[in-house]
Amino acid sequence: MTTPLRIGLAGLGNVGAGVVKVLDDNADLIARRAGRPITITAISARDRNRDRGIDLSRFEWVDDATELAGRDDVDVVVELIGGSDGPALTLARRTLAAGKALVTANKALLAHHGLALAEQAEFQQVALRYEAAVAGGIPVIKGISEGMAANRLSRVYGLLNGTCNYILSRMEAERLPFTQVLAEAQAAGYAEADPSFDIDGIDTAHKLAILAALAFGARIDFAAVATHGIRAVELADIDQAQALGFRIKLVGLAEEQDGALFQRVHPALVPLDHPLAAASGALNAVVAEGDFVGRLLFQGRGAGEGPTASAVVADIIDIARGTSGHPFGMPVAALAALPPADTAGRQSRYYLRLTVADRPGVLAELTAALRDHGVSIESLIQRGHAASGDAMLVMVTHMAQEAQVLASLAQMSLSASVTGAPVMMHILDF
Amino acid sequence: MTTPLRIGLAGLGNVGAGVVKVLDDNADLIARRAGRPITITAISARDRNRDRGIDLSRFEWVDDATELAGRDDVDVVVELIGGSDGPALTLARRTLAAGKALVTANKALLAHHGLALAEQAEFQQVALRYEAAVAGGIPVIKGISEGMAANRLSRVYGLLNGTCNYILSRMEAERLPFTQVLAEAQAAGYAEADPSFDIDGIDTAHKLAILAALAFGARIDFAAVATHGIRAVELADIDQAQALGFRIKLVGLAEEQDGALFQRVHPALVPLDHPLAAASGALNAVVAEGDFVGRLLFQGRGAGEGPTASAVVADIIDIARGTSGHPFGMPVAALAALPPADTAGRQSRYYLRLTVADRPGVLAELTAALRDHGVSIESLIQRGHAASGDAMLVMVTHMAQEAQVLASLAQMSLSASVTGAPVMMHILDF
Repeated sequence: MTTPLRIGLAGLGNVGAGVVKVLDDNADLIARRAGRPITITAISARDRNRDRGIDLSRFEWVDDATELAGRDDVDVVVELIGGSDGPALTLARRTLAAGKALVTANKALLAHHGLALAEQAEFQQVALRYEAAVAGGIPVIKGISEGMAANRLSRVYGLLNGTCNYILSRMEAERLPFTQVLAEAQAAGYAEADPSFDIDGIDTAHKLAILAALAFGARIDFAAVATHGIRAVELADIDQAQALGFRIKLVGLAEEQDGALFQRVHPALVPLDHPLAAASGALNAVVAEGDFVGRLLFQGRGAGEGPTASAVVADIIDIARGTSGHPFGMPVAALAALPPADTAGRQSRYYLRLTVADRPGVLAELTAALRDHGVSIESLIQRGHAASGDAMLVMVTHMAQEAQVLASLAQMSLSASVTGAPVMMHILDF
Repeated sequence: MTTPLRIGLAGLGNVGAGVVKVLDDNADLIARRAGRPITITAISARDRNRDRGIDLSRFEWVDDATELAGRDDVDVVVELIGGSDGPALTLARRTLAAGKALVTANKALLAHHGLALAEQAEFQQVALRYEAAVAGGIPVIKGISEGMAANRLSRVYGLLNGTCNYILSRMEAERLPFTQVLAEAQAAGYAEADPSFDIDGIDTAHKLAILAALAFGARIDFAAVATHGIRAVELADIDQAQALGFRIKLVGLAEEQDGALFQRVHPALVPLDHPLAAASGALNAVVAEGDFVGRLLFQGRGAGEGPTASAVVADIIDIARGTSGHPFGMPVAALAALPPADTAGRQSRYYLRLTVADRPGVLAELTAALRDHGVSIESLIQRGHAASGDAMLVMVTHMAQEAQVLASLAQMSLSASVTGAPVMMHILDF
């Protein structure tokens, strides 16, 4: 088969420019691997005149990206516009409706409209692929949907946002507060001017909802992801976690339990010998657990021009090879609508940090709150704040039920001795 | 498509029994994912009467495994017999000749006959798949050949033998000598009665030769793999490595450099913060480096019934889905015949350990040998052996050329002061 596969490329930011570079630099190699040449025929972006360091004059320019879907010289549309709705969604729908394959790196689009788009792709019998949408260059969509296809998966979790991982790693390494590291990351271009999608965990939640659907054969339920970002993580937490043998990471975690779906994004304490603890800086890492294969770890660069373009082009090569398969591993009709899991009974160890007035009886009062709810303490650190006269109290509980720990915290919050909002984080003991 | 895909299964050891269990336990799930049921129709093994803990009476028993290839009720033959030649090879050839797909976990077969079998599969336009042959349950064949397909790969390396990794991890953790750990591993069934395939690095070399072909688009050249096992690793080396910030691992390493192929299996010093250092016990781990994606890490269980069966069944599911693709990522005719790389100019840091007579002038003599060949020393530890009166001298060099280090060692070996064979190991600085 030597007919070229013809690409219409929408969006020419870093990733779009990266796709052009990959297809240029490795053209011969990719043609040998794909069994046919892969050529870009038409492109579209907001700004035609921006210098992207690549020659775009070879390609047909289209002002309205959604017109790529209707072009006779386009076999596959690559959507790199971004955003859950607007032109990205319109282009995706028109592409599939036109019976063309769609490759996208757009996690927001998939988290919100993934099932509808997958149904459309199935109906049209065309490919909808999105390796780049989760964990950038790491082939984790393929690893889970194909590599682990023989397994019933019980759990999938990981570090899915490079910006958060970078910020937390730098806070720890440089002993700097969150706000300063964020400001520096923004100045250096590692974080967006509006960083909330990253640091509030929304980006991680988008990716987690996609992974969960794929791993458990479940309908995407983005709205059910309990999402907590990293704004509340203080240097004191990072220090105390380290003293206790942990590192704080923003973890996206999904489990299927008894026909219910647990999905949560939260800063969590990861034991230092856990593979996620070693993924520092902007790295991403995903762990998936299957009933026969056990625990698999995938680690690599989760963002950036090269890694994300690598994943986009891998999808294109699969399409060129004629690889088929349902977008979420099985027909949309076969995906289960799993209700959100009740979290009250979840067992975990917990990290608690309280700021308390440094006076007699405080410790007795707080530990009684834990005792009253059946929570026992594994380790406890108390340190005085020289300036404020307050004390910091850090505790790690033994395994306890989430509802009991929350009830203890609620009781503690009522105490006049507790001067700041209590901090609670989960410990990742698996 | 609801016609079942019918499997003929040859070999009913741990992995074969595992395949039966996977297909039993997850039958519905697998059918949904594969788009059709997958059923075993016929089986063959050496011993019909051994109790494998599974009901085999449902399947047609065939005494001669090679007859599975000719059966009308078999679409895919799964070869789990093992061995590079003999019945495994005969079955593989007959299966492909009969126009049936072949799934195998047999690295020896592929290292020796992979290209010929791939040519046969291409000619017949049938699938030849072997995910389970390298790194057990880890989908690294898929990760490299599909997930990284957009990249020019420069290097692939990893821990590919769980037995060696287990032995080295246990030597370190329990401070036991090699022979004792090996004997215990054999008694516990973790190591074979004849352990040489594992501990002499041959198994790792088989897997490395396959990975290198796939990663670099090169013809398999198993004979060119320089293979060193772990018999010579002493507890003293593990201790000294640890003191210097390293962990000793049996590493299979392949690189493509200027059109030549470097392939080596050797115990190497891995920095403690390198992801390979964290893969302990029987885990496998593979790192692959691509020009756009950067460094990817895949980690998981590299052997055992469940993980290996998971990989075998993943291949079967891909076949059921109609996934095609050349066994080595591109047509055999397009694979390059890369000559073995010249290793004399390779740059690395080196770990050297010498046993020397503890008398004046020895250190001056040995360091002069390094100086004479332009090798400079980064760190040096000298310790007296209380019993023998000899001293142990451990050095880490700065970056140096392999030929220069070897020349220094040859010069040292001539010294009357050097009482044992010098030990040299590479340091993994990437």
